Amino acid sequence: MAIVVRCAKVSTLALCAVLAPALAGGADWSDQQLATAGALRDRALSGTSAYEHVTSLVTEVGPRSAGSSGDAAAVRWALNKLGSLGFSNVRSQDVLVPRWVRGHAEVTLAGPVPQPLVAAALGGSVGTSEDGVEAQVLEVASLDALNALPAATVGGKIVFINQRMERTRDGAGYGATVKIRTEGPSAAGHLGAVAVLIRSVGTSGARHAHTGTTRYRVDAPRIPALALSNPDADQLARWLKPGKPVRLRVKSTARELPATWSANVIGEIPGSERANEIVLLGAHLDSWDLGQGAIDDGAGVAIVMEAARLIGRLERKPARTVRVVLFANEEFGLSGANEYARLIGDEAARHVVAMEADIGAGAVWRVQSKVAPASVAAVDAIREALKPLALEAGDNEAHGGSDIGPLRALGVPILDLSQDATNYFDVHHTVDDTLAQIDGKTLNQVVAAYAVAAYLAASKNGDFGRLSPEEKEQR
Amino acid sequence: MAIVVRCAKVSTLALCAVLAPALAGGADWSDQQLATAGALRDRALSGTSAYEHVTSLVTEVGPRSAGSSGDAAAVRWALNKLGSLGFSNVRSQDVLVPRWVRGHAEVTLAGPVPQPLVAAALGGSVGTSEDGVEAQVLEVASLDALNALPAATVGGKIVFINQRMERTRDGAGYGATVKIRTEGPSAAGHLGAVAVLIRSVGTSGARHAHTGTTRYRVDAPRIPALALSNPDADQLARWLKPGKPVRLRVKSTARELPATWSANVIGEIPGSERANEIVLLGAHLDSWDLGQGAIDDGAGVAIVMEAARLIGRLERKPARTVRVVLFANEEFGLSGANEYARLIGDEAARHVVAMEADIGAGAVWRVQSKVAPASVAAVDAIREALKPLALEAGDNEAHGGSDIGPLRALGVPILDLSQDATNYFDVHHTVDDTLAQIDGKTLNQVVAAYAVAAYLAASKNGDFGRLSPEEKEQR
Repeated sequence: MAIVVRCAKVSTLALCAVLAPALAGGADWSDQQLATAGALRDRALSGTSAYEHVTSLVTEVGPRSAGSSGDAAAVRWALNKLGSLGFSNVRSQDVLVPRWVRGHAEVTLAGPVPQPLVAAALGGSVGTSEDGVEAQVLEVASLDALNALPAATVGGKIVFINQRMERTRDGAGYGATVKIRTEGPSAAGHLGAVAVLIRSVGTSGARHAHTGTTRYRVDAPRIPALALSNPDADQLARWLKPGKPVRLRVKSTARELPATWSANVIGEIPGSERANEIVLLGAHLDSWDLGQGAIDDGAGVAIVMEAARLIGRLERKPARTVRVVLFANEEFGLSGANEYARLIGDEAARHVVAMEADIGAGAVWRVQSKVAPASVAAVDAIREALKPLALEAGDNEAHGGSDIGPLRALGVPILDLSQDATNYFDVHHTVDDTLAQIDGKTLNQVVAAYAVAAYLAASKNGDFGRLSPEEKEQR
Repeated sequence: MAIVVRCAKVSTLALCAVLAPALAGGADWSDQQLATAGALRDRALSGTSAYEHVTSLVTEVGPRSAGSSGDAAAVRWALNKLGSLGFSNVRSQDVLVPRWVRGHAEVTLAGPVPQPLVAAALGGSVGTSEDGVEAQVLEVASLDALNALPAATVGGKIVFINQRMERTRDGAGYGATVKIRTEGPSAAGHLGAVAVLIRSVGTSGARHAHTGTTRYRVDAPRIPALALSNPDADQLARWLKPGKPVRLRVKSTARELPATWSANVIGEIPGSERANEIVLLGAHLDSWDLGQGAIDDGAGVAIVMEAARLIGRLERKPARTVRVVLFANEEFGLSGANEYARLIGDEAARHVVAMEADIGAGAVWRVQSKVAPASVAAVDAIREALKPLALEAGDNEAHGGSDIGPLRALGVPILDLSQDATNYFDVHHTVDDTLAQIDGKTLNQVVAAYAVAAYLAASKNGDFGRLSPEEKEQR
């Protein structure tokens, strides 16, 4: 009630909006802290340096697949950047990473008019012999359809998995389709196929192929595996339509080199009272080789750096430490995330909450969480503090990003600021992952959301509980 | 007046609209002919086979740069297709064409983090040595800016011409910028540059480079010449901004092979009364190698084939012959167009008018012409017959397409149905020139316009005059 009276007195709607969350947040935050959150939000909305950070990373480093010279340059860049931005305890953490190189890929219609198809080898895939492999194409509509076929039908063929990804705001279409990439090659290899081509797991009609890792099973031969751009998958489907045999020649010089070293890079805004308690903001430093790594995950790197930097510039710092972790090798098996989780030991219990920015540069539209049930009201209060952004309420079943999965498995609660992924999969994992895809103003909105959520989490009187064994394991 | 009365009698607005042009067209067409034109238009708007034709070309042939196996396949395709569609006098006309092969191009930032830039060799350009060429980059804003520099400044450098093409409906932005591609390499070579990179002459933010021919002058060394995609030109500009020297390594295996043979392909809808008089509908059969040749110029091929086919299915054929000419080698120096004009001899005087479809698959929005002044009213009447399409009136200064330039030089009048080119240069001459860029319904609109214009031109009582020497030479 006191709050309502104060609203009436100052007669400022904006201030009322800032203070209103206290009603929901209860004893979690003081009025002053909620006012600080509101000011942080408005300041970020009016302009941040996030676009400069991602521009710097893309311009000075560019593509940086795990173990490449770009990756090493990215680690140096991050150490220097965190230092120059005033972070404390800036350090790296060595991580062993796989080293795969794409080489060159060619997929060509065999016959009198050898038409080329635009293709990209899947990450981790093996190459062909120097001459390539030529065989008849067998089209299947899905992984299930492939698995239902007898080996006699598949043996000796090039399998074409022609499943189209659906465009959705929450990116669910990716989760529904991506197993054709991760599991398709071994499913086909197990049935005797000589190579596999998948329709790109992406939503664009542009002529670029979508890469990403595949996972070979130990019980299946490793066969070459490539993605076709959507227009090229359409073309192949048109060739197959009349029912006459279609033969393709596939060449790929992809190969795996010995594992090498990269690093997680860490920087902190030390807490003012309980500095040993951590609010973790994660993103990943590595990228695919095809693009510039702007939206995946240069944007995320810029968002978490800038959100933490803005918190670090507050006159009154939050009680807890805000830790930015730029993970090594998200794309190729999460070795950075696993190494971070392995090394924290007892500190795991002092990770109060973890957040990860790894879904591009679209605006935040929802706040989800995976926290102890008693803390759901606090998540609502954080959303309330972001009221001008008109965010939707999510559920308490958030998965969080891939890099904070190992922390969740240790019981660390998750805050998930869902960004609009409607157009993300138009360019994700392709040559078109460039700075041209990022809008600076939208990026400021995301920074505002991260800064407020991280500030409030780091200022909160209580914590967000711990995840129970059931909750840790879910999905 | 008689017409107005008849409108009132039948009391059908549509028929009135069809007949109204007679007022403007005077004695050029009978009421029946104008009604036939209206029916032809409405029939095409309700559905044509144009999309099937371009799908067939793109699927069965695909890329077909001059002299390639695809080009030879395209000639066979066109002969078969014109035959199966019921054209008469289907034949080919041998044409000697240059044969250039792209090979492989690499442009890489030299230094500790060797970032790649997406580039495509310009058509006709020479390659580098096997090791490539490495040098410092000199950025210039335009061809004029380059030409103003002393050789001491340019010598030994890689020149980067960073001029951006403007997006316009009439494609004027292309004409204003394309000379950086045609003239830039020799201008730079003349001043001692070792290679030249141009910003793609295209409007897309996608990461594909725009190819197209360059023209080496005899008085300048031939140096390697490539286009960078727009996002890559942006990236290079960002590298150059701090003013520190930027070195690039450029490799290109582009090379010219001996000239070889291709062919123009011709088919006709014979005229019912004056079959030796020709209304020519042109498009070009060759394409660039990077894309599928769907919008450039598969669309044009489909449009003129289908427009003529629809005329051929009329119960009462027009007086004159409608001749479809699918020219060889538009992209690489117009040798097909020149050979056609060389071979027609006396027939030139019997070419009543020429039209060419070579600006993609966008809707027609304007009717332009280059006819004798006395025939401008007839052009207006043709536009009037297309009234439901709400076309704008152009002037009588049309240039027509490149392939009908040699006919114009012989005095043949030109009808130009301007198609919307707003998005054409997003994909023109790139890997993204695919079927995915064509909308079938819009294509029907273009066919409607071509069918009506060709039918009326072939039915017209008088001709369109001849172009005077001045008019022939203009631009």
